[in-house]
Amino acid sequence: MCRWLAYTGSPVLVEDLLYKPANSLVMQSLHSHLGAEPTNGDGFGVGWYDDHSPVPGLFRSTEPAWNDQNLRELSAHARARVVLAHIRASSGSAVQQTNCHPFRHGPWLWMHNGVLSDFHAYKRDLVLAVDPELFPLIAGSTDSEVLFYLALTFGLEQDPPAAVARAVGFVEAAAARKHVPFPVQMTVCTTDGQRLWAFRYSSEGRSRSLFHSTDVAVLREQYPDNPTLHELSDSARLVVSEPLGDLRGAWREVPESTCVRIEQGREELTPFAPVAAATA
Amino acid sequence: MCRWLAYTGSPVLVEDLLYKPANSLVMQSLHSHLGAEPTNGDGFGVGWYDDHSPVPGLFRSTEPAWNDQNLRELSAHARARVVLAHIRASSGSAVQQTNCHPFRHGPWLWMHNGVLSDFHAYKRDLVLAVDPELFPLIAGSTDSEVLFYLALTFGLEQDPPAAVARAVGFVEAAAARKHVPFPVQMTVCTTDGQRLWAFRYSSEGRSRSLFHSTDVAVLREQYPDNPTLHELSDSARLVVSEPLGDLRGAWREVPESTCVRIEQGREELTPFAPVAAATA
Amino acid sequence: MCRWLAYTGSPVLVEDLLYKPANSLVMQSLHSHLGAEPTNGDGFGVGWYDDHSPVPGLFRSTEPAWNDQNLRELSAHARARVVLAHIRASSGSAVQQTNCHPFRHGPWLWMHNGVLSDFHAYKRDLVLAVDPELFPLIAGSTDSEVLFYLALTFGLEQDPPAAVARAVGFVEAAAARKHVPFPVQMTVCTTDGQRLWAFRYSSEGRSRSLFHSTDVAVLREQYPDNPTLHELSDSARLVVSEPLGDLRGAWREVPESTCVRIEQGREELTPFAPVAAATA
Amino acid sequence: MCRWLAYTGSPVLVEDLLYKPANSLVMQSLHSHLGAEPTNGDGFGVGWYDDHSPVPGLFRSTEPAWNDQNLRELSAHARARVVLAHIRASSGSAVQQTNCHPFRHGPWLWMHNGVLSDFHAYKRDLVLAVDPELFPLIAGSTDSEVLFYLALTFGLEQDPPAAVARAVGFVEAAAARKHVPFPVQMTVCTTDGQRLWAFRYSSEGRSRSLFHSTDVAVLREQYPDNPTLHELSDSARLVVSEPLGDLRGAWREVPESTCVRIEQGREELTPFAPVAAATA
Repeated sequence: MCRWLAYTGSPVLVEDLLYKPANSLVMQSLHSHLGAEPTNGDGFGVGWYDDHSPVPGLFRSTEPAWNDQNLRELSAHARARVVLAHIRASSGSAVQQTNCHPFRHGPWLWMHNGVLSDFHAYKRDLVLAVDPELFPLIAGSTDSEVLFYLALTFGLEQDPPAAVARAVGFVEAAAARKHVPFPVQMTVCTTDGQRLWAFRYSSEGRSRSLFHSTDVAVLREQYPDNPTLHELSDSARLVVSEPLGDLRGAWREVPESTCVRIEQGREELTPFAPVAAATA
Repeated sequence: MCRWLAYTGSPVLVEDLLYKPANSLVMQSLHSHLGAEPTNGDGFGVGWYDDHSPVPGLFRSTEPAWNDQNLRELSAHARARVVLAHIRASSGSAVQQTNCHPFRHGPWLWMHNGVLSDFHAYKRDLVLAVDPELFPLIAGSTDSEVLFYLALTFGLEQDPPAAVARAVGFVEAAAARKHVPFPVQMTVCTTDGQRLWAFRYSSEGRSRSLFHSTDVAVLREQYPDNPTLHELSDSARLVVSEPLGDLRGAWREVPESTCVRIEQGREELTPFAPVAAATA
Repeated sequence: MCRWLAYTGSPVLVEDLLYKPANSLVMQSLHSHLGAEPTNGDGFGVGWYDDHSPVPGLFRSTEPAWNDQNLRELSAHARARVVLAHIRASSGSAVQQTNCHPFRHGPWLWMHNGVLSDFHAYKRDLVLAVDPELFPLIAGSTDSEVLFYLALTFGLEQDPPAAVARAVGFVEAAAARKHVPFPVQMTVCTTDGQRLWAFRYSSEGRSRSLFHSTDVAVLREQYPDNPTLHELSDSARLVVSEPLGDLRGAWREVPESTCVRIEQGREELTPFAPVAAATA
Repeated sequence: MCRWLAYTGSPVLVEDLLYKPANSLVMQSLHSHLGAEPTNGDGFGVGWYDDHSPVPGLFRSTEPAWNDQNLRELSAHARARVVLAHIRASSGSAVQQTNCHPFRHGPWLWMHNGVLSDFHAYKRDLVLAVDPELFPLIAGSTDSEVLFYLALTFGLEQDPPAAVARAVGFVEAAAARKHVPFPVQMTVCTTDGQRLWAFRYSSEGRSRSLFHSTDVAVLREQYPDNPTLHELSDSARLVVSEPLGDLRGAWREVPESTCVRIEQGREELTPFAPVAAATA
């Protein structure tokens, strides 16, 4: 339903990520090639980590990304070593800033492409399982944000893959009690500004697309005219909903049911499976 | 924290209510005389009942009312026999349409001036008490909307004064368990499009201002230059956070801890007191 | 670049025009079939004439039409005998309310699909030709609004086809002086609330699509499940950028270089050609 | 009608200027002490110069500054050596981004507090005097932006005080031809990112307030709890519509009809007077 991009590496101008590539995320907001919907015009968000603060900056708007002049301005001046960006195609919940990804908690960001099917049938059960200390911080009405708070409840800050596995398992159990089949459809990205995790998973085993770039040399080939990327350290990595250019060879598809972990330019792919969790 | 206006009577153009009076609600958005805040610029909403549908129209925006061209246009063309209008001064929750009053459920509207103090301390307890069927319909993040859904849970559609009394009692009990004193500060208005109820109450007995107009003859005196109001039936009634003009004599203050009920041009004032309710 | 719809006939709820048809204008905002762009998400506008005032209501917003809750609400309650609606795909000028169509001057509305090519090369010459009394009323920055004010300058209120012919001729002459070939691409609609004119024209003779419905019996067939349209008088007429349903047979394409005039349910098609006008 | 702030000196976080002071510009958006209007809620803008580009970043929004989450986020992460910020109280023109200050042309920014009285009476004459090359770049509908383009036409980029003197003289002459007395009311700020000029002038000699801070030692005293300002170089300077704190002694009022020029931490005050200019 949405599209997203995550970058980690040496500092870059945000516009080099969001506007310069041929099939850039901002272009995808108007014409996505691989998305479930061609148009992702129901708001967007960018989170970026710089040296001013461990807490990332967060710019979110309900306008289509292709129209937002302020996004263009910010992107031309914000330099960051980790960037998460998301364009939204609402699956029904309101178009408002508090429903735009990424969501933030302290230094953590979270963004999601996909859906928790028939969410309203078991939303209450999920929300009740959220740590009461965290509960009042839920600001919007999306399935994605509730999934974030569930993951936080299950220990995201300590062990992200384990916490996401338990959160997904909890959602599947709650949905099963309401007889909702195949409830989870997701590619998720989360980071604390130092390490980054991406997950590709769906209950029915037919997940939304996800790709990662493994080699900066290939990435430089992808953007021959982009001097900034040519100055990148070898540690630069991208994870994206769909490739940013035509050279598909530059990107590797993340397999089904996989967790990608990136730290200091090294990626590690491990199998991902929900952990049954009937209660928090 | 906010200001509101409720009208019931023969059909009027909405602009006659929102723009024409000297101290109109739109003027109050920029310069309120009696409000806790002089500026009420954090969004607004109008609900109106016409003959097209039992479900009222609902126009809500995050812009300051004084700036909204579309409100001006709508008001010049919408003719209604019941109108609820609200201008917002946020006490902290996000400025977004789903947080703008009035809130709607079927043919019912609800709007609130005031605050549930230290709301986050017991928000979870209130939300858990909402009927699970209604729970997924909560769209925003305000105390006011949760109070509405509590009242619906406690039978608003059957007996509004009793339901509001139980809802307020439940809030006070939940707050007491968290050691929050004087949690409720409110003037509330609700209607099903046929009858209208307004409540003035606060836990500490120092409630926000509330006034009602009892006599159309006086109201006509209030707006000597407004031909529309001169065509009003004798059944027209207004309830407002603050008088719409300088002729204070035209308005009667609603006493503390009072419920005003208006039906077919007759108002009835009865004492209002919360009913202790530890559970729904 | 845009899509539009014009209705004249017995009073209808606006939602019956904007939301109910299979390929409704709101659907076209997300997925247009025949438009130069599939997405028309850069704002929208609706003008409607009712019995309250000779001046039409005008609701314009920079949000995508498919997202706008207030448009949905207004449409469910506004009943009108003439409706103009427009969804915008900007060809470069800012996304702001003053650039949304329709434009209004007294009882007149104007909307445009198309573009004045290389507008900035001769914008100044066009603006200088606008009646100095009208000049300060230009509120936005689009080619479409300047074309409206030129048409007003050339006598739109007296003789619309002649005024539009002179305005288009003036634009072509001004563009020629700047060596801009084929400057005008347009389907235009204008009305005073009583009569309605639509123009299909382009300098190069390859104009944007335009259709009209001539027979209410066919229209009723088009919407078998729409009771409102079944109550329409025989005088109802629609002019649209693209058909609102799959039954193409229900619509007649307006020929190139044609003016459609509709009054009291009768349409008249006449050839349209610019009139050379070097000065106002 | 508006309020503004200009900073030049060693790099600071924008939030240290916009949010931290006691009577900060964001606070003034809700409650201005010295403004012609207490509320400046009709949009805002921030321009900032950093080391990424000679062209400043420009963030403008139609929301009240006090509500804008994105302004808060940007301010917490943007570090700049020159900052111009403006909060708007519209004197009638539309609330839209293209009407928000500062206005930008290449590396130049421009912002204005005040009004050209009875602007519509001579707007056409001013616009016609704008360099035809610059004419199509006028994006909004304000008097302030037209004044900027007039100043650019009269040589702002070569000699700002002379260009502003001629622009103001031209406005006064054009207004005189329409029998408009005292047309100009202004405090204006302009910069190319290296040097900064501020003007206080009005045709009737009763100009809006303007203050400058001359000594960083005093400024540090003003913000005892603000560590960033304590790290400022001695070259830091502020020019503001009204003092940012209660210590009025820390600020010097700019006299009537004066130009302030700041370069590398040295300010120079010279008399300012319009230069009669009947034509460009």
